[in-house]
Amino acid sequence: MIDRNDVSSVRSAIRRGEWKSPTAGLVPGNVQTNLAILPKKDAFDFLLFALRNPQACPIIDVTDPGSPYLDRVAPGADVRTDLPKYRIYRKGVLEAEVKSIEKYWQDDLVAFLIGCSFTFEHALMEAGIPIRHIEEGKNAPMYVTNRKCVPAGIFHGPLVVSMRPIPNDMVVKAVQITARFPRVHGAPVHLGNPSELGIKDISKIDFGDSVTVKDGEVPVFWACGVTPQAVAMSVKPDLMITHAPGHMFITDLKDQDLVL
Amino acid sequence: MIDRNDVSSVRSAIRRGEWKSPTAGLVPGNVQTNLAILPKKDAFDFLLFALRNPQACPIIDVTDPGSPYLDRVAPGADVRTDLPKYRIYRKGVLEAEVKSIEKYWQDDLVAFLIGCSFTFEHALMEAGIPIRHIEEGKNAPMYVTNRKCVPAGIFHGPLVVSMRPIPNDMVVKAVQITARFPRVHGAPVHLGNPSELGIKDISKIDFGDSVTVKDGEVPVFWACGVTPQAVAMSVKPDLMITHAPGHMFITDLKDQDLVL
Repeated sequence: MIDRNDVSSVRSAIRRGEWKSPTAGLVPGNVQTNLAILPKKDAFDFLLFALRNPQACPIIDVTDPGSPYLDRVAPGADVRTDLPKYRIYRKGVLEAEVKSIEKYWQDDLVAFLIGCSFTFEHALMEAGIPIRHIEEGKNAPMYVTNRKCVPAGIFHGPLVVSMRPIPNDMVVKAVQITARFPRVHGAPVHLGNPSELGIKDISKIDFGDSVTVKDGEVPVFWACGVTPQAVAMSVKPDLMITHAPGHMFITDLKDQDLVL
Repeated sequence: MIDRNDVSSVRSAIRRGEWKSPTAGLVPGNVQTNLAILPKKDAFDFLLFALRNPQACPIIDVTDPGSPYLDRVAPGADVRTDLPKYRIYRKGVLEAEVKSIEKYWQDDLVAFLIGCSFTFEHALMEAGIPIRHIEEGKNAPMYVTNRKCVPAGIFHGPLVVSMRPIPNDMVVKAVQITARFPRVHGAPVHLGNPSELGIKDISKIDFGDSVTVKDGEVPVFWACGVTPQAVAMSVKPDLMITHAPGHMFITDLKDQDLVL
């Protein structure tokens, strides 16, 4: 019996392999994160890349090389077993999708927990601002933009953004609310004309799903946590392990811990 | 002729060796930073340490290994020549104090620019809040506390704080103002009773100078940029280069660029 509101119950169900689905909606109010794991030889460059592009890659935690433990954000948690699904990439090619990475673990691996938009979407909804892709039961629409990330070592590439259509009279509030959460992407990077980001057709998404933009709504664009994965993938590191899309790590941190 | 309000003029005077003094008061409104340089083999741990202790070690910029250029915060600047005075430490022992580090530069060195309190002191004074050590022509009083930093790899040690006595009716304003500047230490870590930080006698400083605390003033404590240097020094890395106290790097960033 899994108590979906209790982080220990959910985490142990995930660890035992009993919860295999996406994590959206689990343990409401707790911070969920993206995961990227790289060998130490690539970790310094990746960490620099994250620091130089904090809106796209807000760092929630980084493990000591070789240590799978996440005691600063989730005492007792183990990054090898406590996400429902992982992806193993070798030289940028997807090799496997697995429920545990114990057999892939190496003593030089560094795990990066990266902020995800669930936290700010929760805050937007609490303020009465609708989130279209949730209403439509879809993933957020994501676009590769014409903006370059600040490069770091081997890592370089374009900024990826997610888009949420916001009713005109709620745009200011949406900016204010998300600006309070810089560790989960923060304020929008752009609002209004998609072509300023090099997006010619808002219905043509690069990742996720297309959503309806209604009359009187403004497309609002936030830096997206897919950016570091897309960038890392294009660099084709020897080994990179990520969460499977939607299958996030659930921390013990509360959304409110991330408010400025 | 040095124009003290012009960053190019000041920087080139420093580069030519014509300005050899502390940098306080130069180019008002521009962000000045602490400097720590380490070989790449220690840089990942140091960067992790900084990330895990952001109040003590707010990162303003980190260079690519071997690159002395600081184009993201000061286009055209060179970290080897553009501070007025440096300290060279080998295994934690001060070996030399020099005006340029060109002859010490190695292609594996990584430079960390770390936020310094000048920015928030400027903001406090603009709001009419007095800064006692400036009034008394001294350095800020600094104390080693009983709080441990979050360790990272080889780096571990206590939090060092600076103290400013603030008139009781201005304490709330001082908290609010400094909280807006998380990249230069941010909100206080403590205010009131010094013994809660393990400080038995406020007149006994560990670094800097003792200052007067008047009746009706509250001692307010901020995380201090001396922390990462003190921690790194105790670890005795093979080579560490820092700014000499008070001889900071002056960036092209404006104080207002760091406001949340």
